Amino acid sequence: MNSDWLFTQTGYDPEDLNGLGNRFMLANGYMGYRGVLEEYGKKQLVALNLGGVYDRNGDKWRETVNAPDPMAITLTRGDQAFSVLKQSPLAHTMTLDCQHAKVSRHTVFQAPEGTVTITSERFLSAAATHYGALQYHIEADFAGDFTLRAGIDHDVWDINGPHLFNYAQTVQDDTFCVFARTGEKCVPIAVWQKQFLDAPAEASIERATTGLFRNYQLHLTANVPVTLTVFFGVSETERDDNAIALAMRGVQASDFATWQAAHEAVWAKWWAQSDIEIDGPVDDQRALRYSLYQLLAIAPHGVADQSIPARGLSGQTYKGAIFWDTEMFMLPFFLATDAETARSLVGYRIRGLQAAKQKAASYGFQGAFYAWESQENGFDATSDFNVTDVFTKRPMRTYFRDKQVHISGAIALSIWQTAQWLNDPKLLLSGGAEVILECARFYLDYVKQGLLDDTIVCDDVIGPDEYHERVNNNAYTNKIIEETWRAALAVIDWLQKQAPSALKTMLGQLHYADLPQLIAASLPKLKQPLVKDGVIAQFDGYFGLEDTTVEAVRSRLLDPREYWGGAYGVASQTQVIKQADVMMMLALFPQDYSPETHQQNYAYYEPRTEHGSSLSWSMYAIEAARLGLGDAAHDFFVKTATVDLTGQSKQWAGSIYIGGTHPAANGGAWLVAMRGFAGMQVRDGQLEFKNQLPPQWRAMRFHVGYHGRHYSVTLKAGQEQPEVEEN
Amino acid sequence: MNSDWLFTQTGYDPEDLNGLGNRFMLANGYMGYRGVLEEYGKKQLVALNLGGVYDRNGDKWRETVNAPDPMAITLTRGDQAFSVLKQSPLAHTMTLDCQHAKVSRHTVFQAPEGTVTITSERFLSAAATHYGALQYHIEADFAGDFTLRAGIDHDVWDINGPHLFNYAQTVQDDTFCVFARTGEKCVPIAVWQKQFLDAPAEASIERATTGLFRNYQLHLTANVPVTLTVFFGVSETERDDNAIALAMRGVQASDFATWQAAHEAVWAKWWAQSDIEIDGPVDDQRALRYSLYQLLAIAPHGVADQSIPARGLSGQTYKGAIFWDTEMFMLPFFLATDAETARSLVGYRIRGLQAAKQKAASYGFQGAFYAWESQENGFDATSDFNVTDVFTKRPMRTYFRDKQVHISGAIALSIWQTAQWLNDPKLLLSGGAEVILECARFYLDYVKQGLLDDTIVCDDVIGPDEYHERVNNNAYTNKIIEETWRAALAVIDWLQKQAPSALKTMLGQLHYADLPQLIAASLPKLKQPLVKDGVIAQFDGYFGLEDTTVEAVRSRLLDPREYWGGAYGVASQTQVIKQADVMMMLALFPQDYSPETHQQNYAYYEPRTEHGSSLSWSMYAIEAARLGLGDAAHDFFVKTATVDLTGQSKQWAGSIYIGGTHPAANGGAWLVAMRGFAGMQVRDGQLEFKNQLPPQWRAMRFHVGYHGRHYSVTLKAGQEQPEVEEN
Repeated sequence: MNSDWLFTQTGYDPEDLNGLGNRFMLANGYMGYRGVLEEYGKKQLVALNLGGVYDRNGDKWRETVNAPDPMAITLTRGDQAFSVLKQSPLAHTMTLDCQHAKVSRHTVFQAPEGTVTITSERFLSAAATHYGALQYHIEADFAGDFTLRAGIDHDVWDINGPHLFNYAQTVQDDTFCVFARTGEKCVPIAVWQKQFLDAPAEASIERATTGLFRNYQLHLTANVPVTLTVFFGVSETERDDNAIALAMRGVQASDFATWQAAHEAVWAKWWAQSDIEIDGPVDDQRALRYSLYQLLAIAPHGVADQSIPARGLSGQTYKGAIFWDTEMFMLPFFLATDAETARSLVGYRIRGLQAAKQKAASYGFQGAFYAWESQENGFDATSDFNVTDVFTKRPMRTYFRDKQVHISGAIALSIWQTAQWLNDPKLLLSGGAEVILECARFYLDYVKQGLLDDTIVCDDVIGPDEYHERVNNNAYTNKIIEETWRAALAVIDWLQKQAPSALKTMLGQLHYADLPQLIAASLPKLKQPLVKDGVIAQFDGYFGLEDTTVEAVRSRLLDPREYWGGAYGVASQTQVIKQADVMMMLALFPQDYSPETHQQNYAYYEPRTEHGSSLSWSMYAIEAARLGLGDAAHDFFVKTATVDLTGQSKQWAGSIYIGGTHPAANGGAWLVAMRGFAGMQVRDGQLEFKNQLPPQWRAMRFHVGYHGRHYSVTLKAGQEQPEVEEN
Repeated sequence: MNSDWLFTQTGYDPEDLNGLGNRFMLANGYMGYRGVLEEYGKKQLVALNLGGVYDRNGDKWRETVNAPDPMAITLTRGDQAFSVLKQSPLAHTMTLDCQHAKVSRHTVFQAPEGTVTITSERFLSAAATHYGALQYHIEADFAGDFTLRAGIDHDVWDINGPHLFNYAQTVQDDTFCVFARTGEKCVPIAVWQKQFLDAPAEASIERATTGLFRNYQLHLTANVPVTLTVFFGVSETERDDNAIALAMRGVQASDFATWQAAHEAVWAKWWAQSDIEIDGPVDDQRALRYSLYQLLAIAPHGVADQSIPARGLSGQTYKGAIFWDTEMFMLPFFLATDAETARSLVGYRIRGLQAAKQKAASYGFQGAFYAWESQENGFDATSDFNVTDVFTKRPMRTYFRDKQVHISGAIALSIWQTAQWLNDPKLLLSGGAEVILECARFYLDYVKQGLLDDTIVCDDVIGPDEYHERVNNNAYTNKIIEETWRAALAVIDWLQKQAPSALKTMLGQLHYADLPQLIAASLPKLKQPLVKDGVIAQFDGYFGLEDTTVEAVRSRLLDPREYWGGAYGVASQTQVIKQADVMMMLALFPQDYSPETHQQNYAYYEPRTEHGSSLSWSMYAIEAARLGLGDAAHDFFVKTATVDLTGQSKQWAGSIYIGGTHPAANGGAWLVAMRGFAGMQVRDGQLEFKNQLPPQWRAMRFHVGYHGRHYSVTLKAGQEQPEVEEN
C-alpha cells in the first residue's frame, strides 16, 4: 500500500480520545462512525451518526441522532479485560486507509501467561450505504479460555439527548435487531447485525438494558488466530425483524471480502474523478488526500436533495446542521468532480425554499431568508442564545440566526454558479430560479433607503467575521446583495432567452413582475464601502475601532474559553476579526478588484485576523497564491488541510463537546489547490488555469469537469502554461 | 419656625455620610455645597461644586469642577479633636431650613473637664450667587485653651480628578485667597474668605500644601460662647488678590445678618411664586417643599442660557452633565413659576445647537442630534463605555450616546412648549425655530424607508427604558419623532403668520425649503406600534420577550451591583423594563390616547417596571391620578418626592460614587402634584385643571403662570370644580 494514502498513529494516548474520533472517522454519506475502538462506550464518545435524522429532546438543542453501535466488542479472560480503557497496551496502532476508506487497529496486550493481540478492520459500505462490516481477530501466544462479547450497544452518547426511546431487542435467524423511535417525531430507527465466529465456542445471548449481545466462551490455541466477522445494517424503517432476517439470510462470513471489494470499487471510481496528485512534500499530498477523503465520505452520493452538515457525519456538534460552509467551501469541489452530488447539495436548498420563506416571514420580510443552521427541510435550528457566558454561565443573546443575512446570497449564488458551471438551465426551471428571485426579494425588503439621501443601506447585520455583531453595511454582505441582485437579473435574462413562457408564468406566479426594474434601479444606489488607502472598511465605523493585534486581544482574555465576540468580547471593539471577511469577498470575486486592492487588503487584514474559524485560512491562502506569496499560501494550505489531523481545533466549550471534523476546511484545501495553486477561474464562460504553484510543489495533476466536459490538467513548476487535455 | 419647612436629623450615623451630603445640600444656582460638617475633608466627600465649569483629567470622564472648600474648620484642645470623625458626639443634630435655604448643625462633645458644643449655620447667597457665609459657635461648660483652625481647604475630592493645578495662596488685608487653574482649559478658579472671631485670640497663618488656614489659640470662659464668622466668595476670575481684597474691605462681622436677610428675601420671592400648600399629611407637604427647594436652589436664576445637571449641584456624578431630565421633568415647573429661568434653560439648548449639529454630522447625519450628557456649549460627554462589567471589570460598550435619539425631540418639543406656554414667538425667532427644524431634519435623516413598503421605520434606538438596547421602532421614540415633525410644521405655520419674511429668510438660510413638504408626506408613513389587546408594544418584538416579573428578574442577579441592561443583563431579554416608556408617552400626550388605552397600558406595564430610574415614578403617578387610582398615585408621589430624603437610591457603582440629588424626581413631584392631582392640562391653548386629588389630600393651593398671566388655584376634596383666580 502506498503510504501517501495512509494515516497511522502508533501508541495509545488516553488524552487523545477526541482527536482519534475525528481523525479515524469513517462515513459513507448516509452514516458516519467515529474513530473509536471496539471496547469503547458512550464515555469515549462512540457515535454512529445519522446525518439526515434530527430530533429534539425537550427544550434542548435539536441535533442529529446517533444510532445504537453495532460494532461493540469486548474480550476478557477471567478478571482481565483486553481493553485500552483497562490497561495500557504493549503496542497499539490505528490506521486510516483513505484510498479504501477503511480503519484498522492492531493492539497487543500483556496477559499473565503471555500476550494477546487484537486486530480489526472495518468499513461503512460505499456500495450499500445502510451497511457496514467489521472483522475482529484475536490471537494469543498462549492457550487459554476467553470470553468474547459482541453485539449492539444502545447506551448511546448524545450531546443533547437522549433521542431514542422504546427500545425493542429481537433475535431472528441469528440476526440481532434493535429497534427504537426518536422522541420528537417518532422516526423509527433499526440497527441489525449478523455475527460469524470462525472457531467453536459456546454462545449465549445477553439481553441487557444497554444492548443486545452474544457472549462466546472461547478456547484459544496458542498462536492460532480466531476471527469474528460482523455485518450490520442501519435504517429508518418500521420494526420488522422478519424482513431484516430475510435480507440477511444469505450473508456468509466469506462475504466480507465481497462487500469490501464492492465498497472499494466505488471509492476507486470516486478517486479517479477527484484525486489531485502532487510532486511535492508527501505530507502535503497526504493532507490534501485526507481532505478529499473527508469530502467524499460525507457527501450524499446518489441521494437526491441532501446536503452536508458543518461537522460532516462526525457527530452532533453544531446540531448536525448545514451551514453556508457547504455552498461556499464544499460545493465547488463537487461541481468540478461529481456533478450529481453537486446537484443534490443544491437540491437540498431548493427543497428548503418554503422554510426559508417562512423564516423571512417570521421576521416580517418577504422573500427567502435561509437558515443559519439548517436541518431537515431547511428548518433553522439556530438558537437565539447560541453561546454561554463563561463568567455568569448565562446564555448570551446571539444574532447568528437573525442577522447573518448573507446566507441567503450564498445559497442564491451557489445555485446560479451551479447552473452556469454545469451549463444546466433545467436546474433554474426546476426551482433554482425561484430561490434566486426570492433571495433577491428578501434583500429588497431587508435594505432601507433614507428620506434625504437615496443611498440604499443594509444595516444591522453580521458578516462572516462573527466577532462584530449588528454592524451596518458589512462590505461582504453588501457585495453579496449586489451579486444576488445581479444574479436575479441574469437569471431572468437567461430564461427570457431559453424559456420565455416558463419565465413569464414564473414571474406571474411569484408576483415578481415589477421587481426586476426595482432591482435594476436599486443596484447603483447600494452603499459602497469606505476605502481608505486602498483598504476596504469591513463595515461602517470599522476603522474607528481600536487598532491592535491578535496577540494583544488574546492577552486580554480572563478565561481561555471566553467568547471573543458578542457585545463585550475582547475583540468586539477592536479591528481584530475572527476570519476572512473583506478577504473572503476578494477571494470570491477576484476579477472585480484591482491587483493593488487585493495586495493592500491582504496586507492590512491578515495581521488583524485570528483565523478563529476553519473557514479563514483557505481564503487567505487563495489570495496569497494570487499575490505570488507562495510561502504564505503554502502555510495557510497546510493549516486548512491538516486541521483534523493535528486535532488542534477547539474540542470543548465548557462542558459541551464542539469537536468534530471540519469539512469546510477540507473543501478549503481543495479550493486552495485549485483556485490558489492551479489558478482556476471562470472568465467569460471559459475555465482557465494559471500556474501559481507554491515553491514547495514541483507539479500538480488533477481532473476537472466543466460544462459537462472533462479535462486532465497538469501544472509544472517553471512552466507557465498549464497542460489541459480533454478526456 | 414652621416645621413644614424643616428637615432635622438627630444623631450621627457614620454610615450615612453620603445621604447627609445630598439631603442637607445648599445651592444657589451658581454653586452647590454638600451637606457636610466643617471638620469633614475629601474622604467625607466635601464638595463645593461649580455647575458650569467642566474639566477633563487625562482620559478620564469629563466632569464638573469642585472648588476649594472655604468652610473648613476644626476645633481641638491638646490632643482632642472636637470632630465627629474622631469621637462619637453626645448629641448631634443637622437641620435644613428649606424656607430660608440654610443648613445648621448642633453637636455636643465630651471633654475630660466637661462638654463642648459646636453650632453652625451657613447659606450660599441667593442674592449674590458667588458668595456665601457661615457662623461657627463654640461653647464649653468649663474654661480652657482651644485651637481653632479655619481656612480654605484645597485638598479637593473628585471622582475623576484632580482638576485644579498651580495653586497659589495669598493673604491681603486679612482676606485669604486661593487661586488655581483647571487642567484642560486653564479656567481660573478663585476662592476667597474673610474671617472674624468675636473673642481675643493669638492668630497665626498656616500655609499648608493642602490649604491656607488661620490657627487661633483661644481661651474659652465657661459657658461663654465664641463665634467665628466666615464670608467667602468663589469665581472663575484671573488671579487678582488686590481686587478681591478691595471688594471684601468693607465687610464686617455684623454683615452676616445683612447678607442673610438679602438671601432670605430672594427665597421669599421664589417661594411666593412656587409654593404648593396642601391640606394633608405633613410629610407630603414637607416632601413636596423639599422637592421645590431643590429645584429653586439649583436653577440658574438671572443667568442667561444655563441649564441644570441631572444631579443638580450635588457633585460630579454623571459628569455634572445636563440630560433630557431638565426639559422633561424640570422645565415645566419653571415655565409655570419662573419664566426667566425657563427661558435660560431653553436658551442653553439654543446655544448648544452648533454642538448638536456637529454631533449629528459626526455620525453622518444632517440636522441636530443633542447630547445625551451635555456639558458646556452642548458638548456631549457621554462615553461609549458608560458602564463597567462587574464580573470582568471591563468597560461595556453602551449606546446612550449614539442611540438615544429621542433626546433631540425632547429639546425641540420643550422649545415649542415654552414658546406656546409663554406665548412668546420671539423665542422661536431668536434660535428656537432653528432648533426645532434641525431636530426634525435629524429625524428625517435617521429614519429609513423600505423599497417594497413605504412604511418609515426608526431602527436601532434606545427608548427611555435603557435596559433594552438597539431596538427597532420604540413607540415612545416614534411618537417623539412624529410630534417633532408636527412641531416643525406648526412652527413654520405660526411664523408664516407672525413673521413671514423672517421665516422665508430662515428657510432659505437653512436650505429647508423642500423639507416641510417631505415632513408632511412622511408623517402618515411613520411606523405605528403594534397594539395587542389595547397594549402598545414598547418596540418591535417586545411581546416576544420573556414575560416575567421584576422580582423574578431581580432574583437572577449574581451580583447586586450588576447592570440589568446591556446585551446580556438580567432584564434585557425579558419584558421587565427600567422605567416608564410607553407610559411616559401616555403621560406626556394624554389627549392622543383613549381612556381605555391609558388604563390597559398602565395595568400591563406597571407590574413590569422596575422603577430603576428616578424618572419613572412621577409618570406612573400622573397616569394613576388620571385613572382615578388615588392611592397608587399617592404612593408614587411619595416615592418621587422623598428620593433624596430617604437616600434609598443607589450611591455607589462598584467603587464609583454615583449618588447625588435627583432633581428630575423633584421636578417629577411637582408634575405629579400639578398634572396628576391638580389635573393641569393645556387644551386648545387653554390651561385647565381637574380635581384628581388623592384621598390623603383635603386641599391644594398654588400659583401658576400661563401666557404671561398669573393665577391662584385652589382644589378641595369633594369639590369637582377648582377655584381659579387671576392675580
